[in-house]
Amino acid sequence: MAYNTHMSKLIEYEDASPEVRAVYDDIRATRKSDFINNFWKAIAVNPQNLRRAWQHTKEIMTGPGTLDPLVREMIYIAVSVTNGCEYCIASHTVAARNKGMTPEMFGDMMAIIGLANENNRLVKGYQVEIDAAFK
Amino acid sequence: MAYNTHMSKLIEYEDASPEVRAVYDDIRATRKSDFINNFWKAIAVNPQNLRRAWQHTKEIMTGPGTLDPLVREMIYIAVSVTNGCEYCIASHTVAARNKGMTPEMFGDMMAIIGLANENNRLVKGYQVEIDAAFK
Amino acid sequence: MAYNTHMSKLIEYEDASPEVRAVYDDIRATRKSDFINNFWKAIAVNPQNLRRAWQHTKEIMTGPGTLDPLVREMIYIAVSVTNGCEYCIASHTVAARNKGMTPEMFGDMMAIIGLANENNRLVKGYQVEIDAAFK
Amino acid sequence: MAYNTHMSKLIEYEDASPEVRAVYDDIRATRKSDFINNFWKAIAVNPQNLRRAWQHTKEIMTGPGTLDPLVREMIYIAVSVTNGCEYCIASHTVAARNKGMTPEMFGDMMAIIGLANENNRLVKGYQVEIDAAFK
Amino acid sequence: MAYNTHMSKLIEYEDASPEVRAVYDDIRATRKSDFINNFWKAIAVNPQNLRRAWQHTKEIMTGPGTLDPLVREMIYIAVSVTNGCEYCIASHTVAARNKGMTPEMFGDMMAIIGLANENNRLVKGYQVEIDAAFK
Amino acid sequence: MAYNTHMSKLIEYEDASPEVRAVYDDIRATRKSDFINNFWKAIAVNPQNLRRAWQHTKEIMTGPGTLDPLVREMIYIAVSVTNGCEYCIASHTVAARNKGMTPEMFGDMMAIIGLANENNRLVKGYQVEIDAAFK
Repeated sequence: MAYNTHMSKLIEYEDASPEVRAVYDDIRATRKSDFINNFWKAIAVNPQNLRRAWQHTKEIMTGPGTLDPLVREMIYIAVSVTNGCEYCIASHTVAARNKGMTPEMFGDMMAIIGLANENNRLVKGYQVEIDAAFK
Repeated sequence: MAYNTHMSKLIEYEDASPEVRAVYDDIRATRKSDFINNFWKAIAVNPQNLRRAWQHTKEIMTGPGTLDPLVREMIYIAVSVTNGCEYCIASHTVAARNKGMTPEMFGDMMAIIGLANENNRLVKGYQVEIDAAFK
Repeated sequence: MAYNTHMSKLIEYEDASPEVRAVYDDIRATRKSDFINNFWKAIAVNPQNLRRAWQHTKEIMTGPGTLDPLVREMIYIAVSVTNGCEYCIASHTVAARNKGMTPEMFGDMMAIIGLANENNRLVKGYQVEIDAAFK
Repeated sequence: MAYNTHMSKLIEYEDASPEVRAVYDDIRATRKSDFINNFWKAIAVNPQNLRRAWQHTKEIMTGPGTLDPLVREMIYIAVSVTNGCEYCIASHTVAARNKGMTPEMFGDMMAIIGLANENNRLVKGYQVEIDAAFK
Repeated sequence: MAYNTHMSKLIEYEDASPEVRAVYDDIRATRKSDFINNFWKAIAVNPQNLRRAWQHTKEIMTGPGTLDPLVREMIYIAVSVTNGCEYCIASHTVAARNKGMTPEMFGDMMAIIGLANENNRLVKGYQVEIDAAFK
Repeated sequence: MAYNTHMSKLIEYEDASPEVRAVYDDIRATRKSDFINNFWKAIAVNPQNLRRAWQHTKEIMTGPGTLDPLVREMIYIAVSVTNGCEYCIASHTVAARNKGMTPEMFGDMMAIIGLANENNRLVKGYQVEIDAAFK
């Protein structure tokens, strides 16, 4: 059976149901790599969540669009850093590096992420009202 | 005197101290526009905070670096949306548009921001451990 | 009856049940003021929540302890700014001002709040491990 | 003496003051189990915080009310996942499982948590105004 | 044409492209109501985001699953309150009420949301390590 | 060369460029201690970020101002706990202890941090409007 009693066990390819295997196969084909990272193996406990999360991620991160792959990763990282998701930071920093992010670019991105988090709070604390020009 | 008893009053150029005026002048020169938005006028209640926030913002958002101005704005917006800072979203969306962000680019960026916020939570809820490959 | 069908209606003293009035009376006595702010009137829709929230707030913010009233307010504001709770920022900034916070102190507090939010993110993004000395 | 110099040491039953023991006894009686988890042992460094947090948690999570025990746990988990509290996710997922949450229910809950986090950000980013019908 | 230069304009049915109208028609059919709330009209600026968000929301909130409709709404609200998304709180509180949430249930849910947010922070601040029993 | 291919490697004094060493020297002089904690070593991968973060932190946390050093640390901790930054909590709790925070003060501070996080959410969930008196 596809489910187990623990909520976060990792489902390996060999133990996976056909439905889960089909998603794993598509992940491998899309990424041109046999490596399946833990995120997919963990949510595969619920095959519907696996299918949905993969479709969503594939379409938005690798589908046609106006933003190049590295910019997509940097936006993803900016969110993950702000939310404090260590897993997402680690995995997408590797992904961004593989797409060409240099240490200098990483540093420039981090500076903006830090600045925005700081200014976001200054704005809230000073109770700044939105300028008519921005509406 | 430069301070007032209300914490979030807006300091207009004509009422500003020389120290505040010097910052306003630099904002205008840097942006090639007379418009000073409310953020700066609000934190000008504390001239040190104004000076510091402006220097920080100017250096990171407009100084030399590896990321082009529009990518900088998109990273800033990704943080601001995740933190729910309405002012920052409104002002930096206008800034991004002025730097060339089309509605299609805005939509593609928003899709990534939404996706990352979703996946960040799936990762936490499923208690996914970081793969050795990402360390 | 004490409840209404809308979730966030304000319960005025004259319309309140005896249970709610008792809390309102204690708020007035504790604060030495007739003013009841909207927070209490809103959660009074659920008298248990009103009683619980007031007891909690009264004990922690005005009960005996090692921190003086103004420091308590500044810690409260630091949380509220970070969470982006406009109501809490507005009400506790007034409370802090009434307890002696000057605009200079407000500005110095805001600078720290901004800085911590920035550094919190730098730490996460750079995946900094905790030093042995801090464990 | 009840305090120690380190802030987060765990207070075991045998080392606890009578005040702390009384809370531990009530935790055990309420849960019909000898197990005291680390959360209580850590905040027992400050007996007042222990007493307050336990009373609060006991009343809200196990006291009379309109929501069944499992729904209460799922609401608690939804918050903890959104805040990224690993400890709270781990402990309350176990608690929910003990109250009947199946892996399918866990997956359905996680899908909603992910979706809400995503839609929350889309709403903010698109600067959507509240419909008159929702006011 | 389907796009406009402003990022957050509302797209009304009569001004919508066939692609957008098809989604609006499905929203109306699914909800058995002509009312289209602002969220959908705002993201319709980017038809792909509209389609994706609606499919996602429809599947998770109204599709087959183990959780009843009201529990789904309460989980959604717990996330939205924690994130401070005013729009989402307003719209889903109305939705929950329409699915049977009484003021007492709302109050009991809010108490848990407040408690979890409080305990989440106590856990972090006291640096509590996860018990072996929860792993 | 000052950069390396990994984003979060620690830069030790002996491997540091003159620009980085100058910052390390100032950290040591300011703190009257040879210890450089991992935060600075990690962001030293990007010397500009190191310089900027240190200047910012030094000015705000140790420069002249209206708040005493311990209050500054408590405000910093309140933010870090709310954001769930484990590193920042660990390092600044040690710093606060070194500046005189007793376990009782830590507990009183934590109680306020917990309370504010709880009340922040009650305010949002009940959709409380700001009183005229707070504007």
